[in-house]
Amino acid sequence: MAGNSIGNIFKVTTFGESHGIAIGGIIDGCPSGIALDFDAIQNELNRRKPGQSEIVTQRKEPDTVEFLSGIFEGVTTGTSIGFTIKNANQKSKDYSHIKDVYRPSHADYTYDKKYGVRDYRGGGRSSARETACRVVAGAIAKQVLKDVKINAFTSSVGEIFIDKPYQDLDFSKTETNIVRCPDEKIAEQMIARIKEIRKQGDTIGGTVTCVLQNVPVGLGEPVFDRLHAELGKAMLSINAVKGFEYGSGFCGAKMKGSEHNDLFNADGSTKTNLSGGIQGGISNGMDIYFRVAFKPVATIMQKQETINSEGEVVEMQGKGRHDPCVVPRAIPIVEAMAAMVLTDYYLLNKMHS
Amino acid sequence: MAGNSIGNIFKVTTFGESHGIAIGGIIDGCPSGIALDFDAIQNELNRRKPGQSEIVTQRKEPDTVEFLSGIFEGVTTGTSIGFTIKNANQKSKDYSHIKDVYRPSHADYTYDKKYGVRDYRGGGRSSARETACRVVAGAIAKQVLKDVKINAFTSSVGEIFIDKPYQDLDFSKTETNIVRCPDEKIAEQMIARIKEIRKQGDTIGGTVTCVLQNVPVGLGEPVFDRLHAELGKAMLSINAVKGFEYGSGFCGAKMKGSEHNDLFNADGSTKTNLSGGIQGGISNGMDIYFRVAFKPVATIMQKQETINSEGEVVEMQGKGRHDPCVVPRAIPIVEAMAAMVLTDYYLLNKMHS
Amino acid sequence: MAGNSIGNIFKVTTFGESHGIAIGGIIDGCPSGIALDFDAIQNELNRRKPGQSEIVTQRKEPDTVEFLSGIFEGVTTGTSIGFTIKNANQKSKDYSHIKDVYRPSHADYTYDKKYGVRDYRGGGRSSARETACRVVAGAIAKQVLKDVKINAFTSSVGEIFIDKPYQDLDFSKTETNIVRCPDEKIAEQMIARIKEIRKQGDTIGGTVTCVLQNVPVGLGEPVFDRLHAELGKAMLSINAVKGFEYGSGFCGAKMKGSEHNDLFNADGSTKTNLSGGIQGGISNGMDIYFRVAFKPVATIMQKQETINSEGEVVEMQGKGRHDPCVVPRAIPIVEAMAAMVLTDYYLLNKMHS
Amino acid sequence: MAGNSIGNIFKVTTFGESHGIAIGGIIDGCPSGIALDFDAIQNELNRRKPGQSEIVTQRKEPDTVEFLSGIFEGVTTGTSIGFTIKNANQKSKDYSHIKDVYRPSHADYTYDKKYGVRDYRGGGRSSARETACRVVAGAIAKQVLKDVKINAFTSSVGEIFIDKPYQDLDFSKTETNIVRCPDEKIAEQMIARIKEIRKQGDTIGGTVTCVLQNVPVGLGEPVFDRLHAELGKAMLSINAVKGFEYGSGFCGAKMKGSEHNDLFNADGSTKTNLSGGIQGGISNGMDIYFRVAFKPVATIMQKQETINSEGEVVEMQGKGRHDPCVVPRAIPIVEAMAAMVLTDYYLLNKMHS
Repeated sequence: MAGNSIGNIFKVTTFGESHGIAIGGIIDGCPSGIALDFDAIQNELNRRKPGQSEIVTQRKEPDTVEFLSGIFEGVTTGTSIGFTIKNANQKSKDYSHIKDVYRPSHADYTYDKKYGVRDYRGGGRSSARETACRVVAGAIAKQVLKDVKINAFTSSVGEIFIDKPYQDLDFSKTETNIVRCPDEKIAEQMIARIKEIRKQGDTIGGTVTCVLQNVPVGLGEPVFDRLHAELGKAMLSINAVKGFEYGSGFCGAKMKGSEHNDLFNADGSTKTNLSGGIQGGISNGMDIYFRVAFKPVATIMQKQETINSEGEVVEMQGKGRHDPCVVPRAIPIVEAMAAMVLTDYYLLNKMHS
Repeated sequence: MAGNSIGNIFKVTTFGESHGIAIGGIIDGCPSGIALDFDAIQNELNRRKPGQSEIVTQRKEPDTVEFLSGIFEGVTTGTSIGFTIKNANQKSKDYSHIKDVYRPSHADYTYDKKYGVRDYRGGGRSSARETACRVVAGAIAKQVLKDVKINAFTSSVGEIFIDKPYQDLDFSKTETNIVRCPDEKIAEQMIARIKEIRKQGDTIGGTVTCVLQNVPVGLGEPVFDRLHAELGKAMLSINAVKGFEYGSGFCGAKMKGSEHNDLFNADGSTKTNLSGGIQGGISNGMDIYFRVAFKPVATIMQKQETINSEGEVVEMQGKGRHDPCVVPRAIPIVEAMAAMVLTDYYLLNKMHS
Repeated sequence: MAGNSIGNIFKVTTFGESHGIAIGGIIDGCPSGIALDFDAIQNELNRRKPGQSEIVTQRKEPDTVEFLSGIFEGVTTGTSIGFTIKNANQKSKDYSHIKDVYRPSHADYTYDKKYGVRDYRGGGRSSARETACRVVAGAIAKQVLKDVKINAFTSSVGEIFIDKPYQDLDFSKTETNIVRCPDEKIAEQMIARIKEIRKQGDTIGGTVTCVLQNVPVGLGEPVFDRLHAELGKAMLSINAVKGFEYGSGFCGAKMKGSEHNDLFNADGSTKTNLSGGIQGGISNGMDIYFRVAFKPVATIMQKQETINSEGEVVEMQGKGRHDPCVVPRAIPIVEAMAAMVLTDYYLLNKMHS
Repeated sequence: MAGNSIGNIFKVTTFGESHGIAIGGIIDGCPSGIALDFDAIQNELNRRKPGQSEIVTQRKEPDTVEFLSGIFEGVTTGTSIGFTIKNANQKSKDYSHIKDVYRPSHADYTYDKKYGVRDYRGGGRSSARETACRVVAGAIAKQVLKDVKINAFTSSVGEIFIDKPYQDLDFSKTETNIVRCPDEKIAEQMIARIKEIRKQGDTIGGTVTCVLQNVPVGLGEPVFDRLHAELGKAMLSINAVKGFEYGSGFCGAKMKGSEHNDLFNADGSTKTNLSGGIQGGISNGMDIYFRVAFKPVATIMQKQETINSEGEVVEMQGKGRHDPCVVPRAIPIVEAMAAMVLTDYYLLNKMHS
């Protein structure tokens, strides 16, 4: 238990620093006999990739995945799937200015205190670059779960938010704009806001909403491993996430029981869905939906005072190419994490068949 | 992995239905040599116990814990600690009216679909009664972590909330009122609100805030097992929880990086603490604080239409003695879960010593 | 990971010292819907129970199991099954003579060094008394696996051994004699040998052979979790076990490939079965058979020199009622461990269905 | 839990088929701050490598390991260590003759039945090629445990065995001959025997003995995770292993307690060591020693009848370059597995510090 694995049956372990030779991972427990759609996997990576639009980091990484095992003639064999993604961006010179410096609200300080040593180049293991491996594993998980529909989208950027329930949105619009917001008018406002923030050398937070449809009834385990608890952990494990709520969420804490209860239809579906598709930690067949809060990226292009490892005060300013808002690139990551969690519970639930 | 365990090094597994003979658990991995304070353990159980005040359920359960192993002459031996808590409330007649009925927003439907069979008496395994076992394990975890201060409190009930930062509160006041709110004026309003709601035969939600102080630097693991991710999962695993946020939380999603970054003091502490005491998933020595949203209890004393297992529409009304608001009794549960998670990471971190 | 759990899907955690109030355990991951045969469970406990015949310890323990959860109206519900077995033998006075003494070839010394504290009464957690909990869990596992036949028997006591292949034995004879050897002539010799040893105040080792029939093809996982590796670990975890071999075992190390290879019949069965029913760590549908070596019990009724916790040499002599040979009572334990391992893999393999 | 991981704190997960692009793995939980000796790692791989002498397979594989992460400027950083080893031997044409054929005593049949699909080239995942990854992880584990001495050696080949206790051997002689037997006279006989067997187109089994010295007192966990149980599982997980015994082993089953007990010296060491350095599953500071039985390699250069996936009887004959005796190359694998297990328990035991 050293932090680099997720899942029990569909188990994913990853490795890699932002400026090492490569990042990669192992997927253990993928069912055999799945004819993989490799274009779909690469497409998910492309959605996360830096440099994809004018509102994300302009760093260039081809992010091409190479599968090394567990697949034979295009079909999963049931054995462990190893994969790597080469790092294009290995040259270390860009990072000498932060070698001994603890950047504010980064993991530099805590990694140094915990491990006594760290790869300071671009955040090392704490860099969001590792999420590319999650996207690969999630893209395979989506193919295990083929009937489930997983749709994440940008629901707010700073103070700008979609003011409609998700039922009124057309998810096919999410990929039609660079901020990945299915409401086109709001998308325009978000994009304008991000451009403005970037000009200021600043960054901004936002939220992602994710909707899971066609989830079979019965996924989840009682008590400690409730489906929403594991979804929450998975989302909170993504860089920059500060909060998670599902169904009625924090609003539910203001409500009365008589307002909040979801009454049943005769077929077991419910008239409302404040429960968010999960009761007692187990999916009930209704839509599962949740919302994830992302803080603003800590690297800003403004001067900040900070300290170095000697405890001396130094001035620093972000260099290089960073995201003014992490949310547009986080969409495929949120989907990947949801897919992994669902797949794990889906396979686990087969025990009861 | 069937849901009844939490932790990796300090591992807790629980069992028990609300109306069986007893509930209980096993704590595996508790360090040896701890001279346990048994009064402190029982005191935590008393804080969670039904019937403790006029704003909680009037059901009576003595909730006395019996330890069966792992302790010799009052000291932990390092072997597994088994314990049981007898159920006073075993008579089943109260529950015949819900035998075949799926109560709205309960786990009846999902358990039935997942397992094909369920103990319908009082929710069975999905009852919040199991949280008594968490409180026992958490009370022992607190004794492992003796320098860490763990303070949870009621931060809102319905629309009524504490409008101060936690730094302005006196945690010694939390236990001076029955709603467990350290702001005495707000506490009065909360109590009045809960009494009103109870008269209506209704229930209401609320939030709990928890502050962890004196946490050593370095607890947490990278990538998937970040400290806040595991705290989030632990909180989301508590009955009725719909959301979790730490540090700046959902508000952080509206902020700019230049506002959100926590600048360092020369000693490594930070001038602000929007990070919530955790950077890159690892504790940085600042206060860890988080907020947990609880929905209103689903059992209300009003008539509701629902369905039975045949899919027929039936009318039902809650009987018995239920909590109008779960939050006052949830305080020790939130603390217990936090203590268990911290202890697990504390022991794990010894690997690096 | 502190040693008191086994299994991944069918997960068993136990607690209890030989002279505490009770021992017990939790079975997590038992499938729902199994109508348990409680007499069969108690019968397994009776096979392990002290005092059952003149060649085992004359200590008296009723060993009655009480189930506390996870079963409703006689049927498993899929939630965690808690159980306890009261210790009749709690009075501590018999053990004052070993309080500070490290008995030779017991765990007294290592427990003291590892934990700094120990329950010295009768071995505490290291006592074979904990195996009663294994027998309970194994008896339930047998009911999950109902088509599989599990037959263990005493194959040797000291130098006396069965000189036939297991195929020539009638397993229905195993329970007809107190040493649990299906060859009645050999059984008589074994019984005589154990009686003689007991008169000498000595003890003697032996071996148990176990045969698993009707195991489905496909149980086991590649590489580190091969079926025989997990069976081996399970057997080696039983008190007093010194060795494990399956199929051709140590004899196989003397053979040539041309002699050892199991040639196929057209239906996929094999003409010989030196592989022991497992190829590449996965069951092939043939009988699985293995042999387990038990050392002689360390407590003897003869004077021995030893040391105390101060490092002083002291003389000691076993008191009380101990087994002259552990093997007859080990038969149900070996079967229980085999049943647990097979059940775990059986449930895990459903993932591929 | 799909079989490709071992360890709890020092956790190793591997991937790769014999004829894929590469094999590799991830080591998660390696302590930070270890300045790795890369030559020592490569040296271990060279000891396992094919083609190293005239009595092993003449297949050529350079077996060069490439580390991709978790190491910065030669020092471990505490994050996951990813590595790959390229397969030189990828061309598939050699294996067309076994595409649909189930080779006797291989895993072809069981993999096909379990997964419904398999990489038939050279055994795919069931090939012993994966053990190269174990050797890499074990070589790092050895560097974590630097005070512990781990010495494995060939103790028998077929009927030829070392007839001395290990204390009379000079382990520095092990690497002076190609069969890795520290008794030079016996080594010559073993080498002659293997050459003879190879000429016959046959194969032969053997045993490996392993001695662990300077192991700290206190490693191991009670009940299910005893140190010898995990060592046993680790050894049984190696390809071709049929048995494991430690200390007195199967001979102990023939002994009396009065002969078998290890009496203490005043310093806590024991006069004899039939216990094999482990009491109650926990190391006692004496030498740990065990013996592992390897069957003869199943691939022989003689004609055998077998079946194909249609159930038709076909004749086959091994092609290519196979080991006549697996034992000489198994020495570093046994050591690697022992090192991994000890490291895992060593780190786990820090919890008690």
